[in-house]
Amino acid sequence: MSAKRRPVEYHEATPEVRAVYDDIMATRKTDWVNNFWKVLAHDPQTLKRIWANIKQVMGPGALDPLTKELLYVAVSASNGCRYCIASHGAAARTKGMTEVQYSELLAIVGLANETNRLVTALDVAVDPQFL
Amino acid sequence: MSAKRRPVEYHEATPEVRAVYDDIMATRKTDWVNNFWKVLAHDPQTLKRIWANIKQVMGPGALDPLTKELLYVAVSASNGCRYCIASHGAAARTKGMTEVQYSELLAIVGLANETNRLVTALDVAVDPQFL
Amino acid sequence: MSAKRRPVEYHEATPEVRAVYDDIMATRKTDWVNNFWKVLAHDPQTLKRIWANIKQVMGPGALDPLTKELLYVAVSASNGCRYCIASHGAAARTKGMTEVQYSELLAIVGLANETNRLVTALDVAVDPQFL
Amino acid sequence: MSAKRRPVEYHEATPEVRAVYDDIMATRKTDWVNNFWKVLAHDPQTLKRIWANIKQVMGPGALDPLTKELLYVAVSASNGCRYCIASHGAAARTKGMTEVQYSELLAIVGLANETNRLVTALDVAVDPQFL
Amino acid sequence: MSAKRRPVEYHEATPEVRAVYDDIMATRKTDWVNNFWKVLAHDPQTLKRIWANIKQVMGPGALDPLTKELLYVAVSASNGCRYCIASHGAAARTKGMTEVQYSELLAIVGLANETNRLVTALDVAVDPQFL
Amino acid sequence: MSAKRRPVEYHEATPEVRAVYDDIMATRKTDWVNNFWKVLAHDPQTLKRIWANIKQVMGPGALDPLTKELLYVAVSASNGCRYCIASHGAAARTKGMTEVQYSELLAIVGLANETNRLVTALDVAVDPQFL
Repeated sequence: MSAKRRPVEYHEATPEVRAVYDDIMATRKTDWVNNFWKVLAHDPQTLKRIWANIKQVMGPGALDPLTKELLYVAVSASNGCRYCIASHGAAARTKGMTEVQYSELLAIVGLANETNRLVTALDVAVDPQFL
Repeated sequence: MSAKRRPVEYHEATPEVRAVYDDIMATRKTDWVNNFWKVLAHDPQTLKRIWANIKQVMGPGALDPLTKELLYVAVSASNGCRYCIASHGAAARTKGMTEVQYSELLAIVGLANETNRLVTALDVAVDPQFL
Repeated sequence: MSAKRRPVEYHEATPEVRAVYDDIMATRKTDWVNNFWKVLAHDPQTLKRIWANIKQVMGPGALDPLTKELLYVAVSASNGCRYCIASHGAAARTKGMTEVQYSELLAIVGLANETNRLVTALDVAVDPQFL
Repeated sequence: MSAKRRPVEYHEATPEVRAVYDDIMATRKTDWVNNFWKVLAHDPQTLKRIWANIKQVMGPGALDPLTKELLYVAVSASNGCRYCIASHGAAARTKGMTEVQYSELLAIVGLANETNRLVTALDVAVDPQFL
Repeated sequence: MSAKRRPVEYHEATPEVRAVYDDIMATRKTDWVNNFWKVLAHDPQTLKRIWANIKQVMGPGALDPLTKELLYVAVSASNGCRYCIASHGAAARTKGMTEVQYSELLAIVGLANETNRLVTALDVAVDPQFL
Repeated sequence: MSAKRRPVEYHEATPEVRAVYDDIMATRKTDWVNNFWKVLAHDPQTLKRIWANIKQVMGPGALDPLTKELLYVAVSASNGCRYCIASHGAAARTKGMTEVQYSELLAIVGLANETNRLVTALDVAVDPQFL
């Protein structure tokens, strides 16, 4: 294996890996699997584990599916993960995120990064009202 | 001034600073100002600028007020800013965030941080479908 | 040794460690050594190495001593290292940093963190003029 | 709009956006606008807000213009924002930064990142002299 | 529930939570559960999920148990997570980490953070030999 | 010099720089020098300093050479430094790291980043047993 891992395509995948790919496509109602999973597939244990985590965390719950994707995009934007912004941004658009909402999300990400640093640098004490 | 800046209380603030405090309380319909602003007040220019930014970014828009606070909390949790988690967490609770929703938010923050690193370390190519 | 390393005081230090302490005090023209070095002293190799790095990097050069300290404080504030903000902030004040300059420094740190995220999230292409 | 936002050129911009572009060029005494602003222009509110922030924070103050740019470059280098290093590096060079000064700046950024981690990992207590 | 979540003790835990606590103690051959799990217990789904992840990732594999703990400590030290350094540091010591090894680990964490920033800031091209 | 620094090749290097290149190749028993050092060479002081640091920190000690490289790769993966992952990943493979071990390392990096955020966001108190 070379240092950079190439995507494992469906036709060359083991049955164990195909089962995850099949579940991803069935859950998302799509007919393709994105590169993240195909690169993770070199390590089937991690592929299965991360997919199980995503399925549980991003599945039905107290937050609606769009809000969950917006939160995922915001953290990914704050961390500068281009792939994650692209993939979860696409998912958010599919679930209804508009371009104006995306602009507002980015504005919040930017401003929170600014105030987070100011607060930490100034070592602001937590107000008793917040405890 | 000692190295660590203490909060500037209302009664000792200049009219310029009081005007910001008044606007914060009027906008938020509260009768107190939290420590972040009172510590920023040593630099009135920055106090006014950051408050103007917060007011614009967190004000009415295409995302509802609760979603905006959830995004702020998520970025602050990802960055490990305790004060910001406490203050925006309180704001989110005021706007209706339940404890179950907060748990789901934290789960997304944690998982996004995990997959962000995996994606970046594996240098996954963006799928053409996402471009 | 317990998990948290306590400061190694001068009177209990080995000659190897004392030699570094002596050089720190002579270089800085002070009569005390701050906790960072006293905690590092449990690992004399690292103590010597880091001090040699600091002495070279923060010593005379093309940037004046105050500007060097301001840069150190700015990076530390951006990274949220409270101890480093306190210690390099004190050094910057000794070299002439005023409180207004410190406020401006923090404003730049905050704003850079905001625009850094916006730029990265939006994946802005570098203009040919900047290459 | 596709997922990745392309730069909005002057000839296709709305009057509101052109007014910001004009002010950027007038303030900087140049005849072009860099990509950051042209990508932000999809969201005119944010374009205006961020430009107003930059103008205030990077404008005349207690720190000289070159020092301000050096601080911006240092934070951007610490955060790994390539575009920001390129754009603010260019601005710093215009204001007089030499290559030797840039090398010294990078050395400080690198070393501060090293000692920031050591200090935080070792949980060093702030010396009373720094409080 | 107040904003800060308190640890859920064994005697007050639901059977679902107790089952995880029991498995943690049985796996680790200890008679107590550390605070991380007791605070996570307010969200039993996440408690179970994270424990299942830890058990799989930190369990027997191609890397020996001590090396796995050292890696966990190194990432936590790099991220500045005090609790994680303390808890995984304790686990590493139990598995044989000496104080000299810990010092070397911290030296690597510090130096990697320095060179990571230099490399990224200088935008060094990957050598073909590494591809 | 243009803004982006190009690698300084051996044939064009000064004797001072060549001496470092020679030492790198002798220490590593290779006949080439990777780009990081060739880009650093524009600043010979920093080239010498960083190489001296790497040589000391990554040289013989209480941790074996493979473990040291694994720690370097883990921190670099956590920080998202692609070049550093490639270069230290290659070094780790030379010292015996298998692909299965690399997968386990990445899994630890990802999971530590997840739990680091959860712990910090939940502000978990350090257990007395860990002090």
